[in-house]
Amino acid sequence: MSAGGRLVTIEGGEGAGKSTVMAAVQAALAATGREVVATREPGGTPAAEAIRALMLSPEHALVPEAELLLAFAARAQHVRERVLPALARGAIVLSDRFTDASFAYQGGGRGIDAARIAELERWAAGVRPDLTLLLDVGVGEGLARARGRGGAPDRIEREQETFFERVRATYLARAAAEPARFRVIDAGLPQAEVVAAVEAQVRAWLEAQAWT
Amino acid sequence: MSAGGRLVTIEGGEGAGKSTVMAAVQAALAATGREVVATREPGGTPAAEAIRALMLSPEHALVPEAELLLAFAARAQHVRERVLPALARGAIVLSDRFTDASFAYQGGGRGIDAARIAELERWAAGVRPDLTLLLDVGVGEGLARARGRGGAPDRIEREQETFFERVRATYLARAAAEPARFRVIDAGLPQAEVVAAVEAQVRAWLEAQAWT
Ligand SMILES: Nc1ncnc2c1ncn2[C@@H]1O[C@H](COP(=O)(O)OP(=O)(O)OP(=O)(O)O)[C@@H](O)[C@H]1O
Ligand SMILES: Nc1ncnc2c1ncn2[C@@H]1O[C@H](COP(=O)(O)OP(=O)(O)OP(=O)(O)O)[C@@H](O)[C@H]1O
Ligand SMILES: [Mg+2]
Ligand SMILES: [Mg+2]
Repeated sequence: MSAGGRLVTIEGGEGAGKSTVMAAVQAALAATGREVVATREPGGTPAAEAIRALMLSPEHALVPEAELLLAFAARAQHVRERVLPALARGAIVLSDRFTDASFAYQGGGRGIDAARIAELERWAAGVRPDLTLLLDVGVGEGLARARGRGGAPDRIEREQETFFERVRATYLARAAAEPARFRVIDAGLPQAEVVAAVEAQVRAWLEAQAWT
Repeated sequence: MSAGGRLVTIEGGEGAGKSTVMAAVQAALAATGREVVATREPGGTPAAEAIRALMLSPEHALVPEAELLLAFAARAQHVRERVLPALARGAIVLSDRFTDASFAYQGGGRGIDAARIAELERWAAGVRPDLTLLLDVGVGEGLARARGRGGAPDRIEREQETFFERVRATYLARAAAEPARFRVIDAGLPQAEVVAAVEAQVRAWLEAQAWT
Protein backbone atom coordinates (compact mmCIF):
# COMPACT_ATOMS: atom_id res chain seq x y z
CA MET A 1 0.00 0.00 0.00
CA SER A 2 1.56 3.28 -1.10
CA ALA A 3 0.93 6.22 1.23
CA GLY A 4 -1.86 8.30 -0.22
CA GLY A 5 -2.19 6.77 -3.67
CA ARG A 6 -1.99 3.40 -5.39
CA LEU A 7 0.41 1.87 -7.88
CA VAL A 8 -1.12 -0.45 -10.48
CA THR A 9 1.12 -2.21 -13.00
CA ILE A 10 0.48 -4.21 -16.17
CA GLU A 11 2.96 -6.95 -16.95
CA GLY A 12 3.43 -9.73 -19.46
CA GLY A 13 5.68 -10.90 -22.29
CA GLU A 14 6.08 -9.49 -25.77
CA GLY A 15 2.79 -8.84 -27.56
CA ALA A 16 0.66 -9.99 -24.63
CA GLY A 17 -1.53 -6.92 -25.09
CA LYS A 18 -0.29 -4.68 -22.25
CA SER A 19 -0.39 -1.44 -24.22
CA THR A 20 -3.71 -2.46 -25.76
CA VAL A 21 -5.48 -2.73 -22.38
CA MET A 22 -3.95 0.44 -20.90
CA ALA A 23 -6.80 2.74 -21.99
CA ALA A 24 -9.50 0.44 -20.58
CA VAL A 25 -7.68 0.12 -17.24
CA GLN A 26 -7.11 3.85 -17.13
CA ALA A 27 -10.83 4.46 -17.70
CA ALA A 28 -11.84 1.97 -15.01
CA LEU A 29 -9.48 3.64 -12.53
CA ALA A 30 -10.61 7.15 -13.50
CA ALA A 31 -14.22 6.14 -12.74
CA THR A 32 -13.26 6.48 -9.05
CA GLY A 33 -12.94 10.22 -9.63
CA ARG A 34 -9.32 10.07 -8.52
CA GLU A 35 -6.40 11.40 -10.54
CA VAL A 36 -4.88 8.67 -12.75
CA VAL A 37 -1.31 8.97 -14.04
CA ALA A 38 -0.59 6.63 -16.96
CA THR A 39 3.06 5.88 -17.58
CA ARG A 40 5.42 3.15 -18.74
CA GLU A 41 8.76 1.51 -18.05
CA PRO A 42 11.48 1.67 -18.97
CA GLY A 43 10.69 5.35 -19.40
CA GLY A 44 8.05 7.69 -18.07
CA THR A 45 10.29 10.78 -17.86
CA PRO A 46 12.54 12.33 -20.55
CA ALA A 47 15.75 11.03 -18.90
CA ALA A 48 14.28 7.56 -18.37
CA GLU A 49 13.04 7.46 -21.97
CA ALA A 50 16.58 8.28 -23.12
CA ILE A 51 17.85 5.35 -21.02
CA ARG A 52 15.13 3.15 -22.56
CA ALA A 53 16.28 4.05 -26.07
CA LEU A 54 19.82 3.04 -25.15
CA MET A 55 18.64 -0.24 -23.56
CA LEU A 56 16.49 -1.30 -26.49
CA SER A 57 18.70 -0.15 -29.36
CA PRO A 58 20.01 -3.14 -31.33
CA GLU A 59 23.22 -1.11 -31.85
CA HIS A 60 24.87 -2.23 -28.60
CA ALA A 61 25.25 -5.81 -27.29
CA LEU A 62 24.85 -5.10 -23.58
CA VAL A 63 26.05 -7.54 -20.91
CA PRO A 64 23.19 -8.67 -18.58
CA GLU A 65 24.53 -6.64 -15.64
CA ALA A 66 24.57 -3.44 -17.71
CA GLU A 67 21.04 -4.14 -18.94
CA LEU A 68 19.79 -4.61 -15.36
CA LEU A 69 21.54 -1.48 -14.08
CA LEU A 70 20.16 0.60 -16.94
CA ALA A 71 16.64 -0.67 -16.17
CA PHE A 72 17.06 0.39 -12.54
CA ALA A 73 18.68 3.71 -13.45
CA ALA A 74 15.58 4.49 -15.53
CA ARG A 75 13.35 3.25 -12.70
CA ALA A 76 15.13 5.30 -10.00
CA GLN A 77 14.55 8.41 -12.12
CA HIS A 78 10.94 7.54 -13.00
CA VAL A 79 9.99 6.70 -9.42
CA ARG A 80 11.47 9.84 -7.88
CA GLU A 81 10.52 12.29 -10.60
CA ARG A 82 7.03 11.03 -11.40
CA VAL A 83 5.65 8.06 -9.44
CA LEU A 84 6.31 9.16 -5.84
CA PRO A 85 5.04 12.74 -6.34
CA ALA A 86 1.83 11.35 -7.91
CA LEU A 87 1.32 8.82 -5.10
CA ALA A 88 1.95 11.55 -2.52
CA ARG A 89 -0.90 13.65 -3.92
CA GLY A 90 -3.19 10.62 -3.78
CA ALA A 91 -3.17 9.67 -7.47
CA ILE A 92 -3.45 6.19 -8.91
CA VAL A 93 -0.34 5.53 -10.99
CA LEU A 94 -0.83 3.03 -13.83
CA SER A 95 2.41 1.74 -15.33
CA ASP A 96 2.85 -0.38 -18.48
CA ARG A 97 5.58 -2.62 -16.94
CA PHE A 98 7.47 -2.04 -13.67
CA THR A 99 9.92 -3.95 -11.44
CA ASP A 100 8.42 -7.41 -12.10
CA ALA A 101 9.70 -7.00 -15.67
CA SER A 102 13.29 -6.83 -14.33
CA PHE A 103 12.78 -10.08 -12.43
CA ALA A 104 11.25 -11.70 -15.52
CA TYR A 105 13.63 -10.41 -18.22
CA GLN A 106 16.99 -9.84 -16.48
CA GLY A 107 16.34 -12.47 -13.79
CA GLY A 108 14.51 -15.32 -15.56
CA GLY A 109 15.59 -14.38 -19.08
CA ARG A 110 19.24 -13.43 -18.52
CA GLY A 111 19.88 -15.51 -15.40
CA ILE A 112 20.72 -12.78 -12.88
CA ASP A 113 20.12 -13.83 -9.27
CA ALA A 114 16.67 -12.73 -8.01
CA ALA A 115 18.14 -11.70 -4.63
CA ARG A 116 20.34 -9.17 -6.41
CA ILE A 117 17.34 -7.71 -8.23
CA ALA A 118 15.31 -7.63 -5.00
CA GLU A 119 18.02 -5.55 -3.40
CA LEU A 120 18.00 -3.05 -6.25
CA GLU A 121 14.21 -3.02 -5.96
CA ARG A 122 14.43 -2.01 -2.30
CA TRP A 123 17.05 0.64 -2.83
CA ALA A 124 16.52 2.07 -6.31
CA ALA A 125 12.76 1.60 -6.72
CA GLY A 126 11.67 1.68 -3.07
CA VAL A 127 8.02 1.26 -4.00
CA ARG A 128 6.09 -1.90 -4.92
CA PRO A 129 2.84 -2.18 -6.88
CA ASP A 130 -0.45 -2.51 -5.00
CA LEU A 131 -1.99 -4.41 -7.91
CA THR A 132 -0.32 -6.16 -10.83
CA LEU A 133 -2.29 -7.36 -13.86
CA LEU A 134 -0.32 -10.14 -15.53
CA LEU A 135 -1.37 -10.74 -19.13
CA ASP A 136 -0.35 -14.31 -19.83
CA VAL A 137 -0.16 -15.63 -23.36
CA GLY A 138 1.75 -18.40 -25.11
CA VAL A 139 5.18 -17.23 -26.26
CA GLY A 140 4.57 -18.06 -29.92
CA GLU A 141 1.23 -16.24 -29.98
CA GLY A 142 2.69 -13.15 -28.25
CA LEU A 143 5.66 -12.97 -30.61
CA ALA A 144 3.38 -13.40 -33.65
CA ARG A 145 1.23 -10.50 -32.40
CA ALA A 146 4.25 -8.29 -31.74
CA ARG A 147 5.62 -9.04 -35.21
CA GLY A 148 2.19 -8.41 -36.73
CA ARG A 149 2.39 -4.87 -35.36
CA GLY A 150 5.23 -4.22 -37.85
CA GLY A 151 8.40 -2.18 -37.29
CA ALA A 152 11.92 -3.47 -36.68
CA PRO A 153 12.26 -5.68 -33.58
CA ASP A 154 14.20 -4.02 -30.72
CA ARG A 155 17.24 -5.64 -29.07
CA ILE A 156 15.16 -7.72 -26.64
CA GLU A 157 12.51 -8.72 -29.20
CA ARG A 158 15.38 -10.38 -31.13
CA GLU A 159 15.89 -13.00 -28.43
CA GLN A 160 15.20 -16.74 -28.84
CA GLU A 161 11.87 -18.34 -27.87
CA THR A 162 13.58 -20.18 -24.98
CA PHE A 163 14.45 -16.76 -23.50
CA PHE A 164 10.78 -15.73 -23.62
CA GLU A 165 9.71 -19.07 -22.14
CA ARG A 166 11.89 -18.30 -19.11
CA VAL A 167 10.40 -14.79 -18.94
CA ARG A 168 6.88 -16.20 -18.97
CA ALA A 169 7.64 -18.86 -16.35
CA THR A 170 9.21 -16.24 -14.07
CA TYR A 171 6.17 -13.99 -14.33
CA LEU A 172 3.87 -16.92 -13.48
CA ALA A 173 6.05 -17.97 -10.55
CA ARG A 174 5.97 -14.44 -9.15
CA ALA A 175 2.20 -14.32 -9.51
CA ALA A 176 1.87 -17.65 -7.71
CA ALA A 177 4.12 -16.42 -4.89
CA GLU A 178 2.15 -13.17 -4.40
CA PRO A 179 -1.50 -13.99 -5.09
CA ALA A 180 -2.76 -10.96 -3.13
CA ARG A 181 -1.01 -8.57 -5.48
CA PHE A 182 -1.29 -10.36 -8.84
CA ARG A 183 -4.24 -11.05 -11.10
CA VAL A 184 -3.37 -13.41 -13.93
CA ILE A 185 -5.43 -12.81 -17.07
CA ASP A 186 -5.62 -15.26 -19.96
CA ALA A 187 -4.43 -12.97 -22.73
CA GLY A 188 -4.75 -15.66 -25.38
CA LEU A 189 -8.46 -14.86 -25.64
CA PRO A 190 -9.87 -12.41 -28.19
CA GLN A 191 -9.10 -8.79 -27.40
CA ALA A 192 -12.61 -7.83 -26.26
CA GLU A 193 -12.62 -10.71 -23.77
CA VAL A 194 -9.20 -9.78 -22.41
CA VAL A 195 -10.32 -6.18 -21.95
CA ALA A 196 -13.51 -7.31 -20.19
CA ALA A 197 -11.56 -9.62 -17.86
CA VAL A 198 -9.08 -6.88 -17.00
CA GLU A 199 -11.86 -4.37 -16.33
CA ALA A 200 -13.66 -6.85 -14.05
CA GLN A 201 -10.48 -7.48 -12.05
CA VAL A 202 -9.78 -3.77 -11.70
CA ARG A 203 -13.35 -3.00 -10.57
CA ALA A 204 -13.30 -5.79 -7.98
CA TRP A 205 -9.95 -4.56 -6.68
CA LEU A 206 -11.18 -0.96 -6.50
CA GLU A 207 -14.19 -2.02 -4.45
CA ALA A 208 -11.91 -3.66 -1.91
CA GLN A 209 -9.84 -0.49 -1.42
CA ALA A 210 -10.24 1.52 1.76
CA TRP A 211 -9.21 4.97 0.51
CA THR A 212 -7.48 7.05 3.15
CA MET B 1 46.13 -8.34 -7.77
CA SER B 2 44.27 -9.15 -10.99
CA ALA B 3 44.96 -12.62 -12.40
CA GLY B 4 47.51 -12.26 -15.19
CA GLY B 5 47.56 -8.50 -15.67
CA ARG B 6 47.37 -5.30 -13.66
CA LEU B 7 44.80 -2.53 -13.38
CA VAL B 8 46.18 0.99 -12.88
CA THR B 9 43.79 3.91 -12.45
CA ILE B 10 44.20 7.68 -12.43
CA GLU B 11 41.80 9.61 -10.24
CA GLY B 12 41.22 13.18 -9.10
CA GLY B 13 38.77 16.05 -9.33
CA GLU B 14 37.92 18.27 -12.29
CA GLY B 15 40.97 19.65 -14.09
CA ALA B 16 43.45 17.89 -11.82
CA GLY B 17 45.40 16.80 -14.91
CA LYS B 18 44.36 13.14 -15.22
CA SER B 19 44.06 13.15 -18.99
CA THR B 20 47.26 15.19 -19.27
CA VAL B 21 49.39 12.57 -17.48
CA MET B 22 47.85 9.55 -19.28
CA ALA B 23 50.43 9.49 -22.09
CA ALA B 24 53.37 9.64 -19.67
CA VAL B 25 51.96 6.85 -17.49
CA GLN B 26 51.20 4.77 -20.57
CA ALA B 27 54.80 5.19 -21.76
CA ALA B 28 56.21 4.24 -18.34
CA LEU B 29 54.04 1.11 -18.26
CA ALA B 30 54.87 0.19 -21.87
CA ALA B 31 58.58 0.30 -20.97
CA THR B 32 58.00 -3.08 -19.29
CA GLY B 33 57.41 -4.55 -22.74
CA ARG B 34 53.94 -5.65 -21.69
CA GLU B 35 50.76 -4.79 -23.55
CA VAL B 36 49.15 -1.60 -22.19
CA VAL B 37 45.46 -0.87 -22.76
CA ALA B 38 44.57 2.79 -22.18
CA THR B 39 40.92 3.48 -21.49
CA ARG B 40 38.61 5.75 -19.51
CA GLU B 41 35.46 5.80 -17.43
CA PRO B 42 32.66 6.35 -17.76
CA GLY B 43 33.19 4.85 -21.21
CA GLY B 44 35.82 2.66 -22.79
CA THR B 45 33.44 0.74 -25.09
CA PRO B 46 30.84 2.09 -27.55
CA ALA B 47 27.89 1.17 -25.28
CA ALA B 48 29.60 2.60 -22.20
CA GLU B 49 30.48 5.80 -24.09
CA ALA B 50 26.78 6.14 -25.02
CA ILE B 51 25.92 5.81 -21.30
CA ARG B 52 28.59 8.42 -20.50
CA ALA B 53 27.02 10.88 -22.96
CA LEU B 54 23.67 10.42 -21.26
CA MET B 55 25.19 10.84 -17.77
CA LEU B 56 27.07 14.01 -18.58
CA SER B 57 24.52 15.73 -20.81
CA PRO B 58 23.17 18.89 -19.14
CA GLU B 59 19.83 18.07 -20.81
CA HIS B 60 18.60 15.80 -18.01
CA ALA B 61 18.56 16.53 -14.26
CA LEU B 62 19.32 13.02 -12.99
CA VAL B 63 18.53 11.94 -9.43
CA PRO B 64 21.66 10.71 -7.55
CA GLU B 65 20.53 7.06 -7.64
CA ALA B 66 20.10 7.16 -11.43
CA GLU B 67 23.51 8.79 -11.82
CA LEU B 68 25.14 6.05 -9.71
CA LEU B 69 23.35 3.23 -11.56
CA LEU B 70 24.32 4.68 -14.93
CA ALA B 71 27.96 4.88 -13.80
CA PHE B 72 27.87 1.21 -12.81
CA ALA B 73 25.97 0.17 -15.95
CA ALA B 74 28.78 1.71 -18.00
CA ARG B 75 31.36 0.07 -15.71
CA ALA B 76 29.76 -3.39 -15.90
CA GLN B 77 29.94 -3.16 -19.69
CA HIS B 78 33.48 -1.74 -19.75
CA VAL B 79 34.86 -4.30 -17.31
CA ARG B 80 33.36 -7.34 -19.04
CA GLU B 81 33.89 -6.24 -22.62
CA ARG B 82 37.33 -4.69 -22.31
CA VAL B 83 39.09 -4.73 -18.91
CA LEU B 84 38.76 -8.41 -17.94
CA PRO B 85 39.75 -9.76 -21.37
CA ALA B 86 42.84 -7.51 -21.32
CA LEU B 87 43.80 -8.55 -17.78
CA ALA B 88 43.29 -12.21 -18.72
CA ARG B 89 45.85 -11.93 -21.51
CA GLY B 90 48.32 -10.34 -19.10
CA ALA B 91 47.97 -6.71 -20.18
CA ILE B 92 48.28 -3.65 -17.98
CA VAL B 93 45.02 -1.73 -18.16
CA LEU B 94 45.34 2.00 -17.52
CA SER B 95 42.06 3.76 -16.87
CA ASP B 96 41.38 7.51 -16.63
CA ARG B 97 38.95 7.21 -13.67
CA PHE B 98 37.40 4.01 -12.28
CA THR B 99 35.31 2.96 -9.26
CA ASP B 100 36.93 5.40 -6.81
CA ALA B 101 35.25 8.15 -8.85
CA SER B 102 31.83 6.71 -7.95
CA PHE B 103 32.72 6.80 -4.26
CA ALA B 104 33.99 10.38 -4.61
CA TYR B 105 31.27 11.86 -6.85
CA GLN B 106 28.10 9.88 -6.11
CA GLY B 107 29.17 9.00 -2.56
CA GLY B 108 30.97 12.09 -1.22
CA GLY B 109 29.47 14.54 -3.70
CA ARG B 110 25.85 13.35 -3.85
CA GLY B 111 25.66 11.75 -0.42
CA ILE B 112 24.93 8.13 -1.38
CA ASP B 113 25.96 5.63 1.30
CA ALA B 114 29.45 4.18 0.67
CA ALA B 115 28.29 0.69 1.67
CA ARG B 116 25.77 0.76 -1.20
CA ILE B 117 28.49 1.74 -3.67
CA ALA B 118 30.83 -0.95 -2.28
CA GLU B 119 28.18 -3.55 -2.97
CA LEU B 120 27.77 -2.42 -6.56
CA GLU B 121 31.57 -2.45 -6.81
CA ARG B 122 31.67 -6.12 -5.79
CA TRP B 123 28.86 -7.19 -8.05
CA ALA B 124 28.94 -4.93 -11.10
CA ALA B 125 32.66 -4.12 -11.30
CA GLY B 126 34.12 -7.20 -9.60
CA VAL B 127 37.68 -5.97 -10.10
CA ARG B 128 39.68 -3.44 -8.07
CA PRO B 129 42.72 -1.43 -9.15
CA ASP B 130 46.20 -2.65 -8.25
CA LEU B 131 47.54 0.91 -8.28
CA THR B 132 45.66 4.21 -8.11
CA LEU B 133 47.36 7.51 -8.83
CA LEU B 134 45.39 10.27 -7.12
CA LEU B 135 46.09 13.71 -8.57
CA ASP B 136 45.20 16.09 -5.77
CA VAL B 137 44.71 19.79 -6.46
CA GLY B 138 42.79 22.62 -4.80
CA VAL B 139 39.20 22.78 -6.03
CA GLY B 140 39.47 26.36 -7.27
CA GLU B 141 42.66 25.66 -9.19
CA GLY B 142 41.23 22.50 -10.79
CA LEU B 143 38.03 24.23 -11.86
CA ALA B 144 39.99 27.17 -13.28
CA ARG B 145 42.10 24.74 -15.33
CA ALA B 146 39.04 22.83 -16.55
CA ARG B 147 37.36 26.11 -17.58
CA GLY B 148 40.58 27.28 -19.24
CA ARG B 149 40.33 24.25 -21.54
CA GLY B 150 37.22 25.85 -23.10
CA GLY B 151 34.02 24.12 -24.23
CA ALA B 152 30.67 24.07 -22.45
CA PRO B 153 30.77 22.57 -18.93
CA ASP B 154 29.07 19.17 -18.67
CA ARG B 155 26.30 18.40 -16.13
CA ILE B 156 28.72 17.55 -13.34
CA GLU B 157 31.15 20.40 -14.04
CA ARG B 158 28.20 22.74 -13.34
CA GLU B 159 28.11 21.77 -9.66
CA GLN B 160 28.97 24.10 -6.76
CA GLU B 161 32.45 24.32 -5.23
CA THR B 162 31.17 22.70 -2.01
CA PHE B 163 30.27 19.62 -4.08
CA PHE B 164 33.85 19.41 -5.39
CA GLU B 165 35.25 19.95 -1.90
CA ARG B 166 33.36 16.83 -0.77
CA VAL B 167 34.65 14.95 -3.83
CA ARG B 168 38.23 15.93 -2.99
CA ALA B 169 37.89 15.02 0.69
CA THR B 170 36.42 11.62 -0.22
CA TYR B 171 39.30 10.86 -2.57
CA LEU B 172 41.82 11.81 0.13
CA ALA B 173 40.03 9.72 2.76
CA ARG B 174 40.05 6.70 0.45
CA ALA B 175 43.74 7.16 -0.23
CA ALA B 176 44.45 7.39 3.52
CA ALA B 177 42.44 4.20 4.12
CA GLU B 178 44.27 2.22 1.41
CA PRO B 179 47.85 3.44 1.38
CA ALA B 180 49.15 0.27 -0.31
CA ARG B 181 47.03 0.93 -3.39
CA PHE B 182 47.06 4.74 -3.61
CA ARG B 183 49.80 7.21 -4.49
CA VAL B 184 48.76 10.80 -3.83
CA ILE B 185 50.44 13.28 -6.16
CA ASP B 186 50.47 17.03 -5.57
CA ALA B 187 48.85 18.12 -8.83
CA GLY B 188 49.05 21.80 -7.93
CA LEU B 189 52.66 21.83 -9.13
CA PRO B 190 53.66 22.82 -12.67
CA GLN B 191 52.78 20.21 -15.26
CA ALA B 192 56.34 18.98 -15.85
CA GLU B 193 56.77 18.35 -12.12
CA VAL B 194 53.46 16.49 -11.86
CA VAL B 195 54.43 14.29 -14.80
CA ALA B 196 57.84 13.58 -13.27
CA ALA B 197 56.27 12.69 -9.90
CA VAL B 198 53.74 10.36 -11.55
CA GLU B 199 56.45 8.66 -13.62
CA ALA B 200 58.60 8.12 -10.53
CA GLN B 201 55.68 6.55 -8.64
CA VAL B 202 54.82 4.27 -11.55
CA ARG B 203 58.44 3.13 -11.99
CA ALA B 204 58.81 2.39 -8.28
CA TRP B 205 55.56 0.42 -8.32
CA LEU B 206 56.61 -1.51 -11.43
CA GLU B 207 59.88 -2.52 -9.77
CA ALA B 208 57.97 -3.99 -6.85
CA GLN B 209 55.80 -6.17 -9.09
CA ALA B 210 56.43 -9.91 -9.24
CA TRP B 211 55.07 -10.68 -12.70
CA THR B 212 53.54 -14.12 -12.97
N1 LIG C 1 -6.22 -10.39 -27.20
C1 LIG C 1 -5.66 -10.12 -28.38
N2 LIG C 1 -5.83 -10.93 -29.45
C2 LIG C 1 -5.24 -10.67 -30.61
N3 LIG C 1 -4.43 -9.61 -30.84
C3 LIG C 1 -4.20 -8.77 -29.81
C4 LIG C 1 -4.79 -8.98 -28.53
N4 LIG C 1 -4.39 -7.97 -27.72
C5 LIG C 1 -3.57 -7.20 -28.45
N5 LIG C 1 -3.46 -7.67 -29.70
C6 LIG C 1 -2.62 -7.12 -30.77
O1 LIG C 1 -1.34 -7.66 -30.57
C7 LIG C 1 -0.34 -6.70 -30.82
C8 LIG C 1 0.50 -6.52 -29.55
O2 LIG C 1 -0.31 -5.89 -28.54
P1 LIG C 1 0.34 -4.82 -27.56
O3 LIG C 1 1.20 -3.85 -28.33
O4 LIG C 1 -0.74 -4.27 -26.71
O5 LIG C 1 1.24 -5.80 -26.72
P2 LIG C 1 2.27 -5.42 -25.59
O6 LIG C 1 2.09 -6.44 -24.50
O7 LIG C 1 2.13 -4.00 -25.21
O8 LIG C 1 3.64 -5.68 -26.36
P3 LIG C 1 5.13 -5.15 -25.96
O9 LIG C 1 5.64 -6.15 -24.99
O10 LIG C 1 5.87 -5.20 -27.27
O11 LIG C 1 4.97 -3.76 -25.43
C9 LIG C 1 -1.06 -5.44 -31.25
O12 LIG C 1 -1.03 -5.39 -32.66
C10 LIG C 1 -2.46 -5.64 -30.71
O13 LIG C 1 -3.43 -4.98 -31.51
N1 LIG D 1 50.01 20.70 -13.49
C1 LIG D 1 49.31 21.53 -14.26
N2 LIG D 1 49.41 22.87 -14.14
C2 LIG D 1 48.66 23.69 -14.90
N3 LIG D 1 47.78 23.29 -15.83
C3 LIG D 1 47.64 21.98 -16.00
C4 LIG D 1 48.36 21.02 -15.23
N4 LIG D 1 47.99 19.77 -15.62
C5 LIG D 1 47.06 19.95 -16.58
N5 LIG D 1 46.86 21.26 -16.81
C6 LIG D 1 45.90 21.85 -17.75
O1 LIG D 1 44.65 21.87 -17.05
C7 LIG D 1 43.59 21.51 -17.89
C8 LIG D 1 42.90 20.28 -17.32
O2 LIG D 1 43.77 19.14 -17.44
P1 LIG D 1 43.16 17.71 -17.78
O3 LIG D 1 42.19 17.82 -18.90
O4 LIG D 1 44.31 16.77 -17.93
O5 LIG D 1 42.40 17.44 -16.41
P2 LIG D 1 41.48 16.22 -16.04
O6 LIG D 1 41.84 15.85 -14.65
O7 LIG D 1 41.59 15.16 -17.08
O8 LIG D 1 40.07 16.93 -16.09
P3 LIG D 1 38.61 16.23 -16.19
O9 LIG D 1 38.24 15.89 -14.79
O10 LIG D 1 37.72 17.33 -16.74
O11 LIG D 1 38.74 15.06 -17.12
C9 LIG D 1 44.21 21.27 -19.27
O12 LIG D 1 44.03 22.45 -20.03
C10 LIG D 1 45.67 21.00 -18.97
O13 LIG D 1 46.49 21.39 -20.02
MG1 LIG E 1 3.54 -2.45 -25.17
MG1 LIG F 1 40.12 14.26 -18.26
